[in-house]
Amino acid sequence: MDKYSKIKRRTYEIIEKAQNNDKASKYFDILILVLIILNTLSIVLESFNTLNSMYKIQFRIFEIISVIIFSIEYMLRIWTSDIGYPSSRGKIGSAIKYIFSTMALIDLLAILPFYLPMIIPVDLRFLRMFRISRLLRILKINRYTKALSLIISVIKDKKDELLATVFVMGFMIMISATIMYYFETEVQPEAFPNIVASFWWSIATLTTVGYGDIYPITAMGKLFAGIIAILGIGLVALPTGIISSGFIVAISKKDKVETKTICPHCGEVIEDNLKE
Amino acid sequence: MDKYSKIKRRTYEIIEKAQNNDKASKYFDILILVLIILNTLSIVLESFNTLNSMYKIQFRIFEIISVIIFSIEYMLRIWTSDIGYPSSRGKIGSAIKYIFSTMALIDLLAILPFYLPMIIPVDLRFLRMFRISRLLRILKINRYTKALSLIISVIKDKKDELLATVFVMGFMIMISATIMYYFETEVQPEAFPNIVASFWWSIATLTTVGYGDIYPITAMGKLFAGIIAILGIGLVALPTGIISSGFIVAISKKDKVETKTICPHCGEVIEDNLKE
Amino acid sequence: MDKYSKIKRRTYEIIEKAQNNDKASKYFDILILVLIILNTLSIVLESFNTLNSMYKIQFRIFEIISVIIFSIEYMLRIWTSDIGYPSSRGKIGSAIKYIFSTMALIDLLAILPFYLPMIIPVDLRFLRMFRISRLLRILKINRYTKALSLIISVIKDKKDELLATVFVMGFMIMISATIMYYFETEVQPEAFPNIVASFWWSIATLTTVGYGDIYPITAMGKLFAGIIAILGIGLVALPTGIISSGFIVAISKKDKVETKTICPHCGEVIEDNLKE
Amino acid sequence: MDKYSKIKRRTYEIIEKAQNNDKASKYFDILILVLIILNTLSIVLESFNTLNSMYKIQFRIFEIISVIIFSIEYMLRIWTSDIGYPSSRGKIGSAIKYIFSTMALIDLLAILPFYLPMIIPVDLRFLRMFRISRLLRILKINRYTKALSLIISVIKDKKDELLATVFVMGFMIMISATIMYYFETEVQPEAFPNIVASFWWSIATLTTVGYGDIYPITAMGKLFAGIIAILGIGLVALPTGIISSGFIVAISKKDKVETKTICPHCGEVIEDNLKE
Repeated sequence: MDKYSKIKRRTYEIIEKAQNNDKASKYFDILILVLIILNTLSIVLESFNTLNSMYKIQFRIFEIISVIIFSIEYMLRIWTSDIGYPSSRGKIGSAIKYIFSTMALIDLLAILPFYLPMIIPVDLRFLRMFRISRLLRILKINRYTKALSLIISVIKDKKDELLATVFVMGFMIMISATIMYYFETEVQPEAFPNIVASFWWSIATLTTVGYGDIYPITAMGKLFAGIIAILGIGLVALPTGIISSGFIVAISKKDKVETKTICPHCGEVIEDNLKE
Repeated sequence: MDKYSKIKRRTYEIIEKAQNNDKASKYFDILILVLIILNTLSIVLESFNTLNSMYKIQFRIFEIISVIIFSIEYMLRIWTSDIGYPSSRGKIGSAIKYIFSTMALIDLLAILPFYLPMIIPVDLRFLRMFRISRLLRILKINRYTKALSLIISVIKDKKDELLATVFVMGFMIMISATIMYYFETEVQPEAFPNIVASFWWSIATLTTVGYGDIYPITAMGKLFAGIIAILGIGLVALPTGIISSGFIVAISKKDKVETKTICPHCGEVIEDNLKE
Repeated sequence: MDKYSKIKRRTYEIIEKAQNNDKASKYFDILILVLIILNTLSIVLESFNTLNSMYKIQFRIFEIISVIIFSIEYMLRIWTSDIGYPSSRGKIGSAIKYIFSTMALIDLLAILPFYLPMIIPVDLRFLRMFRISRLLRILKINRYTKALSLIISVIKDKKDELLATVFVMGFMIMISATIMYYFETEVQPEAFPNIVASFWWSIATLTTVGYGDIYPITAMGKLFAGIIAILGIGLVALPTGIISSGFIVAISKKDKVETKTICPHCGEVIEDNLKE
Repeated sequence: MDKYSKIKRRTYEIIEKAQNNDKASKYFDILILVLIILNTLSIVLESFNTLNSMYKIQFRIFEIISVIIFSIEYMLRIWTSDIGYPSSRGKIGSAIKYIFSTMALIDLLAILPFYLPMIIPVDLRFLRMFRISRLLRILKINRYTKALSLIISVIKDKKDELLATVFVMGFMIMISATIMYYFETEVQPEAFPNIVASFWWSIATLTTVGYGDIYPITAMGKLFAGIIAILGIGLVALPTGIISSGFIVAISKKDKVETKTICPHCGEVIEDNLKE
């Protein structure tokens, strides 16, 4: 391995999640983590009018420094992408593979709004807030990565059922909003001026949030709202039941892998889950 | 097979859900799907007063075209009903069987309000909204059909328990509304004028929606409402628990059917749950 | 069996839940069911001031008739109690056993308020509403009895865990109400005048009802309320998880009873669940 | 065992949870229990201004008596700590071990606020409310200890998954609050003055509490809030599913430990899940 390759590999090790004894890599992780949290904090604080007008320059300087560091990190990740994302089409193939990965797109989203005004002469400064998108990276470098990946695998496993539930929910929102509109629009035209406004009521009721800014006042509307609220409980029960069963299956699968069965016919150990 | 039968069968194939390579049938599915979505959209848009008065004619023309297509489809389905719904009492038996199937009733509901004013001289134009009932057909021709049918089979499997929960809920609504009425009617007669009004509070509380338009203000009423709110959590827990167990049983059943373990050492089948 | 015993047994059969072909018993069940529902309806309708003043006499006559029938039924049940509740201490023992059974106490609660004014010269007319307590009897003679008894057996099975959850919830309500009182009382003394008023906020938040009549406005109060709301989700999750596992265990138990295992050592059928 | 040791052991037995026939210990448990409940009650009652001004002296006397008893109990527990908390570093080691146990810290929290003003000349009288922290001890001496410890063991077992859920929730609160702030701040600057205020909306929506004091009014804001409310259901489903699976695993584990099947025909033990 030549010196160039060695430096590249070392860079890759540093910017990737730290191995047990790699101090440089660990410090780099902490630096990025702290920077992400400080950026989040600065976006929250900037939203206070008084703070924003008092420390406008400081916020701007911090933003510039952050984006420079994030940009260098982003370019280093592209440079070393052929290690993490090997491609048959060489370095450019690796780079493209990396750039369109979810994490890279999120990283790009965090720095792009800074460079945009240089290209397009439109005020898109509010896009700065996309820097908080990098918070997602924290999901990758925290203590609960294992538990999180279990949760994500359960959700992925049950994706179809969960999306079907969202589908049913969308359907119920549509139907109930339309019916409620016809019940209420004449009595309270300012609350239910059209079916789109009625959607807002539907969602608030079916999710049991119930802000209370919009609700039926006619007898028929209330009767119907009562039925929808009770059905709403069923809608809450569906994803819960799906996710419950997902976790139980995930755990029993893990158990099966750990368990060895002995064949009662010949006495030897057999592996489970042999299917025909 | 004579030519008439061939055309009939081909018509049946086209209007039914498309098989893999049947392009004509696929285009027909998409046409109906798009038409249903556009109808839903038009009903939502018509509810905006300004849009309705500006594009009254366009909305009406679109409605006429839609209903004509839906009507032709409906009649074709009746015509070909002897293929999908074979009956011992011949074609008329099949037609009756089909007409009273759930899907056909929904389809009829979507077109009937258009023809009604021709028969009964009453203004029932608001019944147009029943055209959105056809949205249910989307449930049949979407990607998540398999997941949806699992959800439906779980709900059907647990129908009795879920209805018993609804029964218990109805009972609790009745009792709690009556008791709350006696606590609150004297102090806030405009919020709790009678027990029916008290129902509205009961449902909002037991389903944890809590709009906040009606709530107890007396000490006894608040104490009682607190107890009811806590019991309400139990009521939400019941259907969730029932549905959870339904999904787990459904999945373990599927696993049982699919799994046959063979001992790789002696080649014999080992059945886990030997039943007699 | 003498004639007296025969009449008694026949009376018992009629007032008890009907067997398949016993028409007289079935008619009696329906009569009582209809009477209970009409009584419930009359209590709801009486709560409307206009209806109550217009049909005061009719409501009163219906009440007298109902109570007379319910009283006769109650006395018949006591008379035949030695058949359903055999006691070693003879007829009186059976009668006492019956009178203190849950169902009998509920039946008594439904008729007692009618006779009370004859004994105590106090206006207790609002106690009439206890007639709706007989609705509970409907739970015994409906189609979903089997599903209901499964639900009840699961709740009974998990009684300890559910009560422990209620215990934890009571504890959290107490602690959070006290803390919130200290945060909010100075800023909004009319909303949080004392800890008891603060309870009302605690319950509405922990059960996620959220009426919106009382909520924190201080920064510390809102931060604390946010934590409590998130913990509230956990409190909703607890009973749901407990009931879920209860249903799954109940179903797997039923399955076990149905399954027979064959011993791999000697090939004979063995019963499951033999414990040492 | 000398007399001193005997007295010490007897003291230890009395202040610890009572064994079946130990009357003195049972009376002590009841005394402490009653005192804790009365203290809780007095803190609640003191919060009523009228009661506080009328019975100021009585409340103070009761507080002094309570704290004295609690202090004696606390010191007795330290004195006997070498029985319950044996340490290789002798009595002082045991005392330190005990003092830093969770229960001891809670007990200290209950009495410390009384002594603090003697040391620091600052008005910290509101710290009295920490006396309610002793309510936690009730969790140890109630009927549902077994059920409670099952609940706690399930939560501990699923700690990682539950904390990961809290993590995801925090992340969603952060992101949704930031986005909603940009949607709403211009239209309703008093409701959404900064991102911190927007947090309050996020939490109320994601936990489905929905007080209704703050909600979006712009079209984009409402659309986004609807999506967040639906995702909120998923967030409620996650801990429920995790806890459900935890209870099911806990119960099936218990069953496995307890069950040993013996073939009644040949007398040999049949193990269901043979592990290697």
